[in-house]
This record gives sequence, structure tokens and C-alpha cells, in this order.
Amino acid sequence: MRNPTKSAKKTAKTAPKTVGDRPHVSPLMPKKFANLPPIAGVRLATGEAGVRYKGRTDVMAAVFAPGTQVAGVFTKSKAPSAPVDWCRTALACGEARALVVNSGNANAFTGKAGFEGARDVAQSAAACVGCKASEVFLASTGVIGEPFPAGKVTKILDRLVREAAPGSWRAAAEAIMTTDTYPKLATASALIDDKKVTINGIAKGSGMIAPDMATMLSFVVTDARLPAGVLQELLSAGVRNSFNSITVDSDTSTSDTLLLFSTGKGAAHAPVTKANDKRLNDFKAKLNAVLLDLALQVVRDGEGMSKAIRVDVSGAEDDAAAKRIAFAIANSPLVKTAIAGSDANWGRVVMAVGKSGEAADRDRLTVRFGNVLVAEKGDRAKKYNEEAATKAVSGLEVTIAADIGLGKGRATVWTCDLTHGYIDINGSYRS
Amino acid sequence: MRNPTKSAKKTAKTAPKTVGDRPHVSPLMPKKFANLPPIAGVRLATGEAGVRYKGRTDVMAAVFAPGTQVAGVFTKSKAPSAPVDWCRTALACGEARALVVNSGNANAFTGKAGFEGARDVAQSAAACVGCKASEVFLASTGVIGEPFPAGKVTKILDRLVREAAPGSWRAAAEAIMTTDTYPKLATASALIDDKKVTINGIAKGSGMIAPDMATMLSFVVTDARLPAGVLQELLSAGVRNSFNSITVDSDTSTSDTLLLFSTGKGAAHAPVTKANDKRLNDFKAKLNAVLLDLALQVVRDGEGMSKAIRVDVSGAEDDAAAKRIAFAIANSPLVKTAIAGSDANWGRVVMAVGKSGEAADRDRLTVRFGNVLVAEKGDRAKKYNEEAATKAVSGLEVTIAADIGLGKGRATVWTCDLTHGYIDINGSYRS
Repeated sequence: MRNPTKSAKKTAKTAPKTVGDRPHVSPLMPKKFANLPPIAGVRLATGEAGVRYKGRTDVMAAVFAPGTQVAGVFTKSKAPSAPVDWCRTALACGEARALVVNSGNANAFTGKAGFEGARDVAQSAAACVGCKASEVFLASTGVIGEPFPAGKVTKILDRLVREAAPGSWRAAAEAIMTTDTYPKLATASALIDDKKVTINGIAKGSGMIAPDMATMLSFVVTDARLPAGVLQELLSAGVRNSFNSITVDSDTSTSDTLLLFSTGKGAAHAPVTKANDKRLNDFKAKLNAVLLDLALQVVRDGEGMSKAIRVDVSGAEDDAAAKRIAFAIANSPLVKTAIAGSDANWGRVVMAVGKSGEAADRDRLTVRFGNVLVAEKGDRAKKYNEEAATKAVSGLEVTIAADIGLGKGRATVWTCDLTHGYIDINGSYRS
Repeated sequence: MRNPTKSAKKTAKTAPKTVGDRPHVSPLMPKKFANLPPIAGVRLATGEAGVRYKGRTDVMAAVFAPGTQVAGVFTKSKAPSAPVDWCRTALACGEARALVVNSGNANAFTGKAGFEGARDVAQSAAACVGCKASEVFLASTGVIGEPFPAGKVTKILDRLVREAAPGSWRAAAEAIMTTDTYPKLATASALIDDKKVTINGIAKGSGMIAPDMATMLSFVVTDARLPAGVLQELLSAGVRNSFNSITVDSDTSTSDTLLLFSTGKGAAHAPVTKANDKRLNDFKAKLNAVLLDLALQVVRDGEGMSKAIRVDVSGAEDDAAAKRIAFAIANSPLVKTAIAGSDANWGRVVMAVGKSGEAADRDRLTVRFGNVLVAEKGDRAKKYNEEAATKAVSGLEVTIAADIGLGKGRATVWTCDLTHGYIDINGSYRS
């Protein structure tokens, strides 16, 4: 059950038209975007503040019902953005009444003025909503180090809060895009105590973890009634095999933010006070599915990507070792360029396993492209067939599997190839 | 004294003509190659074995005087090539009579047949020279996983050993090139006990550490008379701030090999038995200079590079932390693409410092491009000037300096930018 949510599974067969401000769109753009139902207890609005872009929305605001609980996970960067600092502090209270997100400027490495700008936005939103500033959550994505024009955002906040309405998830997802070529949406319903609750999520990101454009943001809202502590446990666990298992370019954003809100305004279910409560099993599974769906949408929109790559590692000493090996493969520029060129250059996979630093034994290593065995026992596979191997790396979706042959550790990570498009996008992003 | 050897310091002003089998040459190709003098006790020869390339030399052999001492450092890959395995074993004896290097095939991940091929080459060379196979050192560079055609190499060995002559260093450096756009040569003379000795070195590598093409190889020979143990100490220390301080693409080769030979046939100096003998101070300095010169030549020929980048980190907790931060900057695809585009995107440097995992404090961090201060105290520099910053990243050589503001740790690493050329070269290397 890799992707069991309602987001579109099929990809466009013909070149889709342009979305956003990038000339081309990912060949793996979903053929149809998920249609997210309204969620009781949250209203959304978007607007054009002109932070950086012209002629498109660049601010989205969400207004939550009183008592909405919140949890979050953030970048591990030692140079986090002002909104990340703000959210970490606000999270200590555990309640949320509003979320304000802008694209075009990351408000990162902007010093005291950047902090004050973030606070201005929070205070302004709090005044409009009628709540404490600490109940306002913030995220900003765009260029690092540019002075943050807080006034442009605060100027339209009053209108946004007044106009906020249920639905509009698609518009919200579009307003937070930067180099994304498509909006990222996912939804699922789950049962708690036979009561149906809904989970909606949106995300933005095109380099997964990248400094000033592909910064990953994601916001997930449910109408279930779950306390902040439970939400946090679910989110910290759920991120491991979703957002923390993808990479586009190995660069870590200053702004990565994933927030999970629980409005408690859906079908009434009995209180749940512990994350390991069995009544949450279905909810957990569906939440994890939404997170994975959004994470995969991010990586399938990797900057300049032409192919999605799945890396399965098995037989490592333990799961952590497997994940490090998988990331060594997924982050290798030489593996990624080979896949871009449909070159079945399995020697580069061997190289990446060898450089991971994890225990590996050349003579026990097995490598597959798709179902095609290409290397085994320290040598090219006996029945190696160049044509079959090339075919296995020629499609839009490529799977690389490496069995280390030492233990039971397993991990899967997702990435994309490295193409001229990445160089184009990143050689002149600011200009 | 960054580069105090006799290799050419100036780079060509006009586009130099093609060298090797790549259509373009690095803009930082030395204007003039170092002219290496003959070294007593070593004879060189090159030949066309047709391992992979046609119409160019692809094997070089060196024959050493009896009693020649040897030391080596190798890739840390868990999947080393057959020649690396061979050399590690041979090194235990500490004496060398011959070196055989081929380009076009790395003899890596080639299983039992690969080991036997390496042994065949060593035994064949030993028979021609009249020595033990364990006194023959080997290196192979090229595609991983292709069956190694040992017979093509052994077939011409007899002739090479017969024809080997002093001099011919330039031809030797050319025979070991793969995607290199120019041969890498350096020489220096040093005094031991007022006796002049010579150090000659050659290298190949275009991705520094890369799996099947840019595999780094380097061979350094001196006519000084130094025991293997001393050589090994000098080499292990010398590699730290030279070959272990460069990166092109963060990928680690299965074949990286650096060997240091001491023939003892130069001007007779009194025996030296300890690496910390003061009489070796000048020799150490000159050896380190040759190693750094060769390492910089490798990185200045990085695949597809258009600019050389020097990264200076200061103020880190300790030197090791500084080096990890420097490599986080030097390996960041986003930093490298920004420099390629002459984009003074210092936010990406902040991002890279933040993701390094080392202690850093946003509010103490200072970043410079060349002499231009761009960021300080958690904010854009007060006197930030976009024009000056852009100019600082627009030349052929760019320096990025980050002061962490926490301690006294320092490190310098060298890299190159990431361009369309890298994608071109690596998207279809095998075809």
C-alpha cells in the first residue's frame, strides 16, 4: 500500500501545459489533481501581495476554529528561517488559530528585522482573527537573505481573514508554489470509533531540501479531535518514511516546515489521549499515506527532473544503515546523471554503496535495475543483458535495488534524476 | 605558499586546443605544463594496448631500480578495485620494481576474473623486469564492471619494459588520462643534508572522486633514499591538505590510488630513519607542495567545470569541523550551480553551513565572496553591494570564505562549479 490516497495515481501521457512560472512541467505531474473536500473548522483564502512575483497569488491564510491543536516538524538546519524560529516557540502552546504562508521570500538570514517582520505578520493576523499572536503559525519560502517585506503581507491579511472560506485547497496549494511545476494535494478519510474523519494536505517543494526555492513546506489538517501531544507523536513517526525519505539534491532548506492541525470539528468521536491507542490505527495509516503521497509529489516535481527514481536497499546491517546507503545512492550526482541519460551504469551504484561508509562486502552485493539483475557476487551478473538493463532505466520511473547481503536492514528512499534543467533553474534563480 | 612548485601557474588566456578525447578543455588548463627532469632510478614507457580507446596511449609502465621503497594511500570505498586490493597487499613488502597503469577499464567489481587479470599483469611485468610479482604495483582507471582485458596489457609489457627510458613524464601523464582535458605534472627539488633531490609527480582525475571515469590516480617518484615507513608517514600526512581536501562531485572512486616511490639513486645523503627528522623539513614542504599542486590540477580539470572554487572556513569548533563545513559548501549542488551562473547567491552558502551538522550560530556567521563581505551577524551585510558581490563570483577563480565565529578551527578545500558540461559528460559516459 504505497500510495493509497485519493490523489491522482496516473500521470499525463501528453506534455501538460505550463503551471506556475516555470516554462516546463514535470513529466510526472499527476494527470488529475486530488479534489480536497472542505474540512469543518478551517477556512482558507489566498491573495496577491506582490512579495516577489507579479500576477499570481503569493500569500495563503488559514483560519482555524478555537481549540485547534497543532504539531510540527522542522528543518534541522543550524541557520533556520525566522518563521521556523517563530513556529518552534508557538508550538509550545499547542493551539493554533491561524496560519499565514507566503512565497517569494524565505525570511531567512534576515537578522533582527526578519524576526520583527515575522512577528508583525503574526500580530497582524492575530488582530484580524481575534487571538493571541502565539496562536498564529507562519511559513515563508523563496530567496534567502532578501529583506522581508512584511508590510506587503500584513496589508492584505484583513481581507484574507474576512474572505476565508471552506474549500479552496487547490488555490492554497498554488499560492505557496515557487519553482514547483504543479500544486501538491492529497486527501484521505479515516475511521476513529466508526466515525469518519477527513485528512487534507498540501505541500510545496521542488528540490525537497534546497535553500531558497525548493524549500519544502507542507500543511495537513484533519477534523479529528486529537490533542497536540498525540498529533506530535503521530507526525514525528509519520515523517520518517515519507518526507524524511526523499531527496532531490541533498541540500537542506533553512525553512522546511510540516505542520499538522486538528480542528476537532468533524464527526464527534470519544477523546483519544494516547498515540498508541488502537482506535487510531486507521487514522495513522491514512495520515502516513497522505504524508507519503505529498512527499512523493514533491520528489516527482524535482527541479529539472525527467525521471523519478526509487531506491530500495535491503540486507544492510540495520534499517539506519540501509537508509544511509539508500541516500548515498539517491544523492550521487553520477547515479542521477546516468539515469537521466538512460545509461544502465550499475558501476556507479556499486560506487555509491562503497562510499556510504556503511558495512558492505563487494562479494555479497546484488544490484538490480527494475527486475533486471545486473551485478552479483562482486561481479557483473552472469546473465547480464545490456539491452534489458538499458530498458529498465529508460522509462519515466526507475527502481534501483541494492541488496547488501549482510543483515536484515531495509529502507526505501525516493529521488529524481539530475539533468540540464536543474542547472538551468539553479544557475540563475535570483535573476 | 600555496603552490610553490615549478608547475605552470598561469592559465591560458585564449581557448586552448583539444587535449585527449573530450571536445573542450578546462579554461583553467595550465598555459604551460611543468617540464619534469629525469629521475635517477626510474625509467618510463607508454603504449597503445587498445583497452578501450583507439589511437591513443592507454598503458604506462615504470621500472624502478632495485631497492626502491614505496608507500601508498587508497580509496576508502568498501568496493575497491582489483588493483587497489593488489597494491594493499604488495605494500606490505615495501619494495617496488615496477608500476603498470592502464586507462579505459577500472578492473573494479570484476570478481575473481578481475583479480586474476590483475595478477596476470603483475606476473607478466615481474617476468619482464626480473622481480617478484609482489614488487609490481598496479592501477586501472575507466569503466567499472567491464571484464578486464588483461591480455591486451600483458601483450605489450615486454616491449614497454625494454623501451623504458628516463624522462617521458609528459607521455606517462597522458597515457593515464580518461576524461581529463590535460595531463597533470608537477616537480620540485629539495635539500636533504645539503644534497639536492628531485620529486616528480603525475596525476589523473577529472571528477576527483568519481566512479568510473574521473577516478583519481597519482604517482610521485623521488630519487631520495627514504625507507618505506618514513615515506608512508610523509604521504599519509601530506595527503590530508591536498588530495583529501578537494572534491568535484562528492562521489568516491573505487580506484583512488596515490603511490610514492623513493629510488635512492639521487645524490647520496646520510640515511634518514624517522619521518620527524629535521633534515626532512625541506623535503616534506616540497613533497606537500607537489601533492597540492597535483590535487589542484585535478580539481581545476573537474568534469565540465567553468570555474575553480576555493572554500576557506574559519572560526569552527575545531579543524575537523571546519573541514566538514567546507565540504558541505563545496559539495552543495546549489552553491556550485550558483557560482556557475555568476550568481552571488550567498544564501546558499548559509544553507550549506546550516546543513553541515556542525555547530554553527546564524547570528555569528560571516560570509565573503573574495574580499566582498556579503553576510554578517545573521543578516545581509550592512554595506552589501550586489554589483561587487556579483563581480566577486564572475571570474575563473572564486573564493568563498565562511567564518563560523565559534572557535579556532580552520580548513580550506577546493572544488569547481557544476555546469551543463557535467551533465553532458556523465549522462552518456559509457556509450
